Amino acid sequence: MKPLGRRPGRNDTADQILVAARELFSERGYARTTIRAVAAQAKVDPALVHHYFGTKDALFDAAVELPVDPRAVFGDLPSQPGLLGPELVRRVVSVWDQPEIREGLRGMIGSALTHEGAAETLREMLTRGLLPVLRDLAIDDRRDWRAELVASQMAGVILARYVVALPGLGRASTEDLAAAIGPTITRYLTGRL
Amino acid sequence: MKPLGRRPGRNDTADQILVAARELFSERGYARTTIRAVAAQAKVDPALVHHYFGTKDALFDAAVELPVDPRAVFGDLPSQPGLLGPELVRRVVSVWDQPEIREGLRGMIGSALTHEGAAETLREMLTRGLLPVLRDLAIDDRRDWRAELVASQMAGVILARYVVALPGLGRASTEDLAAAIGPTITRYLTGRL
Repeated sequence: MKPLGRRPGRNDTADQILVAARELFSERGYARTTIRAVAAQAKVDPALVHHYFGTKDALFDAAVELPVDPRAVFGDLPSQPGLLGPELVRRVVSVWDQPEIREGLRGMIGSALTHEGAAETLREMLTRGLLPVLRDLAIDDRRDWRAELVASQMAGVILARYVVALPGLGRASTEDLAAAIGPTITRYLTGRL
Repeated sequence: MKPLGRRPGRNDTADQILVAARELFSERGYARTTIRAVAAQAKVDPALVHHYFGTKDALFDAAVELPVDPRAVFGDLPSQPGLLGPELVRRVVSVWDQPEIREGLRGMIGSALTHEGAAETLREMLTRGLLPVLRDLAIDDRRDWRAELVASQMAGVILARYVVALPGLGRASTEDLAAAIGPTITRYLTGRL
């Protein structure tokens, strides 16, 4: 199965470098991560890192780019409010259940919490990349606010399921999550259940 | 006003050391944080760190202890479902709006995302400290699951408001948050609005 919403393109070496960059930026923060260290972690020559990504700044930008395209993930959602929320939950879970995407996103959130610049990067990325997509799903009344409420509930589930791995949310089936959290998403987007 | 649910006790020097320890554990992770560095950050003699907390392990445990007592924060909540959720949101926001407590909690979450041992510590702390309190507020049907759902929504709001500082959730009044998110909490705890 083609992974849902996975960005197309780059080759394996570039992907390897990005995975390594996310790990190191997340572990060490921006300041303590060097191109050399990223190359070593990715098992490639530092010249290749420069070749694919240029400066450390540009590498950082590429590493924190959302590894999935929100427009693809949230395309063609059902318009009936009762189905919209649960389906949105299913889509988010199906993206995060892919280990490679999960690690990339986890790294970004970790950076955001431990590195001032990365928090800003994550905010920019969310407000430009994810929130406009959620905004378009909301009714025409405080759309930006509704999008943020949805993002907050999904972020919390992600934290509980994939980072902290709580006993219930960590092991719940996609359908259990859709049934429990779907109505919340529906209410945030549409004001009704 | 006495800060809501603040743990009583320790003196200023010990508090200073804890604040410094949370910052460093969060920034550098457990392995790269030394007693000496914590002492320097807290502007005290390393011997004082040993005096108050003993080993680095014990200092870590003290630093990741919840800086507030969940039983105090969530005591005497209204029993009417319609009031319960909003009031719970108000209590959480009033704790996190205190900068010192916020920094402590932020540090813990940052560690959890970047440091494997700390994720486990955070999970233990939540499952022992916070979730049992939320569990007692839930109706007698899948109580543990309900407590985790509440924790997930509150964690997401905290992430959006205090860490990423989204434009809407970052600036919303306590009452706007209680009105928007309160019904979600009510539904998770009681199954109805």
